[in-house]
Amino acid sequence: MKECYHVVQYYETDRMGMAHHSNYIRWMEEARADFLMQAGWPFRELEKAGLASPVIGVDVEYFRPVTFSDKVRIEVRLIGFGIAKFKVSYRMFCGLECVCAAHSEHGLVGSDGRHIRISEEFPEFYNAMRAEVEEE
Amino acid sequence: MKECYHVVQYYETDRMGMAHHSNYIRWMEEARADFLMQAGWPFRELEKAGLASPVIGVDVEYFRPVTFSDKVRIEVRLIGFGIAKFKVSYRMFCGLECVCAAHSEHGLVGSDGRHIRISEEFPEFYNAMRAEVEEE
Amino acid sequence: MKECYHVVQYYETDRMGMAHHSNYIRWMEEARADFLMQAGWPFRELEKAGLASPVIGVDVEYFRPVTFSDKVRIEVRLIGFGIAKFKVSYRMFCGLECVCAAHSEHGLVGSDGRHIRISEEFPEFYNAMRAEVEEE
Amino acid sequence: MKECYHVVQYYETDRMGMAHHSNYIRWMEEARADFLMQAGWPFRELEKAGLASPVIGVDVEYFRPVTFSDKVRIEVRLIGFGIAKFKVSYRMFCGLECVCAAHSEHGLVGSDGRHIRISEEFPEFYNAMRAEVEEE
Repeated sequence: MKECYHVVQYYETDRMGMAHHSNYIRWMEEARADFLMQAGWPFRELEKAGLASPVIGVDVEYFRPVTFSDKVRIEVRLIGFGIAKFKVSYRMFCGLECVCAAHSEHGLVGSDGRHIRISEEFPEFYNAMRAEVEEE
Repeated sequence: MKECYHVVQYYETDRMGMAHHSNYIRWMEEARADFLMQAGWPFRELEKAGLASPVIGVDVEYFRPVTFSDKVRIEVRLIGFGIAKFKVSYRMFCGLECVCAAHSEHGLVGSDGRHIRISEEFPEFYNAMRAEVEEE
Repeated sequence: MKECYHVVQYYETDRMGMAHHSNYIRWMEEARADFLMQAGWPFRELEKAGLASPVIGVDVEYFRPVTFSDKVRIEVRLIGFGIAKFKVSYRMFCGLECVCAAHSEHGLVGSDGRHIRISEEFPEFYNAMRAEVEEE
Repeated sequence: MKECYHVVQYYETDRMGMAHHSNYIRWMEEARADFLMQAGWPFRELEKAGLASPVIGVDVEYFRPVTFSDKVRIEVRLIGFGIAKFKVSYRMFCGLECVCAAHSEHGLVGSDGRHIRISEEFPEFYNAMRAEVEEE
């Protein structure tokens, strides 16, 4: 598990006065990029090396709204990492309260979209990620 | 089932050249508002009358990317409508191909966040929506 | 002058209950793409042919807010088109009232960022655009 | 002058591979909120006290693109603060290079939109801001 923070911006709120629900999907991406950075595999480097990880699915449960200037703590867990795809779990907190639980699932393909065998083409990354996998 | 269209904008694309996955969540909202409009219950009127429908969950499966200037056809189905919440199903198409399947679940509360009994406070709307419910 | 429409989405509103000011910049892009489409030069085709038009400047004056479900009519005028850059003027209306006036300025470069002479490399497009230029 | 940082997110990039120009408007808002926080007047408190500062104009010049994971340093200067409106200047840097220069102008009104005399209704805030004003 790694964690990061997102401060809710004014432009992320909507007419109900709270952060619009679509933004949580963006914070998940932000948290994922941060996870990889902390793990020593900055996404920009992976991208340069020819790896892409398109999102193939997301699910999000919203427990309580957050709003402008709230500091959201995001726990990120890699809960699966296979040959062709991986899965990430997110739990977001405002203070001590869990405000959101979510998952994203990603494919592992070449930057040009072609199928790759991650364990053969990016063995070091593959092994590093396998070591990060944990129970949700 | 009702349907509407969304033309993918340039500002909705990302560095991979395709529509960013977070935007589909916004198109779902767009399609939902359009559904209510077509059903004769424009959301803005409901809002004025004191009704809110905060999103309590979403799930999205991405089958194939779409990009700038693609015209996405969205089928919207109300698949459940109860006393306290309702559920919507979305299928998005580009040409004949289904590019995305998704759901959103919503609470039914007062604009001030208080609990309401929709069937008692908005009986006409409640009955109209019950009549729209269909199998997925 | 060409015109198009944008219906304000819920996700475009903010905590003040009105469309967030950053979205107007996106509507300008939307209107620009629509202008080119109407002029017979869809941007996606130009992009395929190797042309890019990065934004080098914008200015926007906001006269009156708009909000969810408002239908904004956008007048787009090409007010300058030269060898290396062009300029576009926008006027947005809600009903009869002018709610926003704006401009954007764009470079004309190759998709790879290299300098090009638009009049020589895309002479037909260049001439078509010159013919669209009008006083603001 | 106060400064803050924004790390460019993947979801802020577009099909050209760079941060979409509309996002700079959002970073300006982010920097403005941070300026007020650093000055001891968090915007959320001002909002609670009944003050709003709707954007009445922006202008932005883009000198060089930035992209995913770039750390943008933003210099914010309050360059005017009057009875009814104020003006802010922004300079954004990536490394040592200035990538963007911008301004925003804001009205000072009650949260309900009514006209106010800031110097009388919020004298402490007014004086604090007057003291922050500097040449651009």
